[in-house]
Amino acid sequence: MNRKSERPIKITEVCLRDGSHVMQHQFTEDQVRRVARELDDAGMHYIEVSHGDGLGGSTLQYGKSFVDEMKLIEAAVDECKQATVAVLLLPGIGTVHELKQAHTLGAGLVRVATHVTEADVSAQHISMACELGMEAIGFLMMAHMASTEKLVEQAKLMESYGAQAVYVTDSAGAILPHEVHEKISALKESLSIEIGFHAHNNLSLAVANTIAALEEGATRIDGSVRCLGAGAGNAQTEVLLSVLDRMGINLGIDIYKMMDIAEHTVGPLIPRPQEINKGSLILGYAGVYSSFLLHAERAGQRFGLDSRDILLELGKMKVVGGQEDMILDVAAQLAKARKLEV
Amino acid sequence: MNRKSERPIKITEVCLRDGSHVMQHQFTEDQVRRVARELDDAGMHYIEVSHGDGLGGSTLQYGKSFVDEMKLIEAAVDECKQATVAVLLLPGIGTVHELKQAHTLGAGLVRVATHVTEADVSAQHISMACELGMEAIGFLMMAHMASTEKLVEQAKLMESYGAQAVYVTDSAGAILPHEVHEKISALKESLSIEIGFHAHNNLSLAVANTIAALEEGATRIDGSVRCLGAGAGNAQTEVLLSVLDRMGINLGIDIYKMMDIAEHTVGPLIPRPQEINKGSLILGYAGVYSSFLLHAERAGQRFGLDSRDILLELGKMKVVGGQEDMILDVAAQLAKARKLEV
Repeated sequence: MNRKSERPIKITEVCLRDGSHVMQHQFTEDQVRRVARELDDAGMHYIEVSHGDGLGGSTLQYGKSFVDEMKLIEAAVDECKQATVAVLLLPGIGTVHELKQAHTLGAGLVRVATHVTEADVSAQHISMACELGMEAIGFLMMAHMASTEKLVEQAKLMESYGAQAVYVTDSAGAILPHEVHEKISALKESLSIEIGFHAHNNLSLAVANTIAALEEGATRIDGSVRCLGAGAGNAQTEVLLSVLDRMGINLGIDIYKMMDIAEHTVGPLIPRPQEINKGSLILGYAGVYSSFLLHAERAGQRFGLDSRDILLELGKMKVVGGQEDMILDVAAQLAKARKLEV
Repeated sequence: MNRKSERPIKITEVCLRDGSHVMQHQFTEDQVRRVARELDDAGMHYIEVSHGDGLGGSTLQYGKSFVDEMKLIEAAVDECKQATVAVLLLPGIGTVHELKQAHTLGAGLVRVATHVTEADVSAQHISMACELGMEAIGFLMMAHMASTEKLVEQAKLMESYGAQAVYVTDSAGAILPHEVHEKISALKESLSIEIGFHAHNNLSLAVANTIAALEEGATRIDGSVRCLGAGAGNAQTEVLLSVLDRMGINLGIDIYKMMDIAEHTVGPLIPRPQEINKGSLILGYAGVYSSFLLHAERAGQRFGLDSRDILLELGKMKVVGGQEDMILDVAAQLAKARKLEV
């Protein structure tokens, strides 16, 4: 593979954070200890541990955690001999207070995540992380919703706040390989910090998109063992590492051990198969938030519409999280248009 | 997408043939009727129906079918208003006799499949299919094992026998996107007939590889609804169609109906989740036959080796089906080499 960067590639395992959604935030301390210990032993670089929606996510709105995430972070740090424990923070959900607490417990890296057009809300948290001496990384979510120009503008903001890397985060699993090439190469040209890519597998493209990102010079990638992440999961770590090995790229991680963790440790935890089903596929196809699914189903029933038509329309309109009240409006408009057609 | 062909793209749904492996060849007539009827209604172009190992595969060696495949072919033909029923034939397993029978029952297309280096054994069956007035297609299996030069040579043989298309068949799910580009573009330059690509998802690349094939001018592609195919399944049809639609490529198939077939008809049939697990991953990573898995496990136990080391060695040596006796030899050699190291 021709890579446009000479920097080493660093991978973050997200099953203990993105997978928290799948587990309905019910990870036990024993589970986190065992997974972290085995990942560390396999040579994993970073292990992200947080509520699925980041620090402070354990609420009625986002789902209460079974075990306080600070306890889980502490447990993971305790198990890691070489890996760095990472945390996720969405400003508005998590606060500087929680960031400091995670740092005190030993977390060495934070990804400060905002909607792709709202990088400006990350300034305070990125600066604070730098002050604390943590690795501070910007995480631009729902990246498929922004033009490449907008994405570059927002990434530059994060760079200006002191981020050491910025991720293109394909939260809905909606980005296609040629779009990854375009977005990552534009960032690579415009920024001097590292570029990362976080994939979801809703369109079965997570591994391919991650390779595309590496080809364009990304040096930070994410994976989830056995695809344990939201939607259809992420780039499946042990598969991704196998593909990279076949391409002559060795990250210094023991692939057999990763396969064994997937089969014997993480696999048995997963409550439902991480396949691409109707729900996860439509999220990627429409490019919308997972929280829209249920609302669209209800609106569909009310207006006699296929919920997929509503979701596709919401995707086209680039409706974002927090605008759930738009769903009924969109459904009403669609129903009216249908009536006029008849 | 820039496509190097102006010909229309034709897709073959393989869940009723490749999926027969997963179903241990126990499809009932009712199941086949319902799946074929719904696929036909959605606008599917070709529906392949045969034993997993092709016509005549119902044997003790390959697994006995619950229902005679001729009965299933007849049932599928009966249900199809517009789709063409296709069959698979591996010379040596299936015979000209069975081909004629399938044709009489209404099968309109046959894929004559050989190991990638053994196209010469397909001459008789391809000629016969042409004589019968069927569409005759060559299917070069385990295509990752041949150099591009060899692949082109073998494909040309099939073209000379009268094949209207030749497929690159990634039986082990071991081909990487850049290799697809290389192989398909070489075939496109050297042949005047259509080129096809049949993917497996063992390395999570089935959809991406299929897109890569289309970009290079392939016009025949395969998918399996809900990933119901051998190994980790194929390119998941409803996902592939969604991605193609997002790229502006419309095959005239109703995507919502395909999603519904996946969720409500095929999904409930599948005996185990079509995830990428330890077994399917190592097949793709090593690039070996699925029948080697159990043999390698046993040899590993006997010689105190990790079966994956044996499989990787077999992959490097390009050992093919029928050479299972090599597995013990390879294990013995590996064990000896390990001893010398100590």
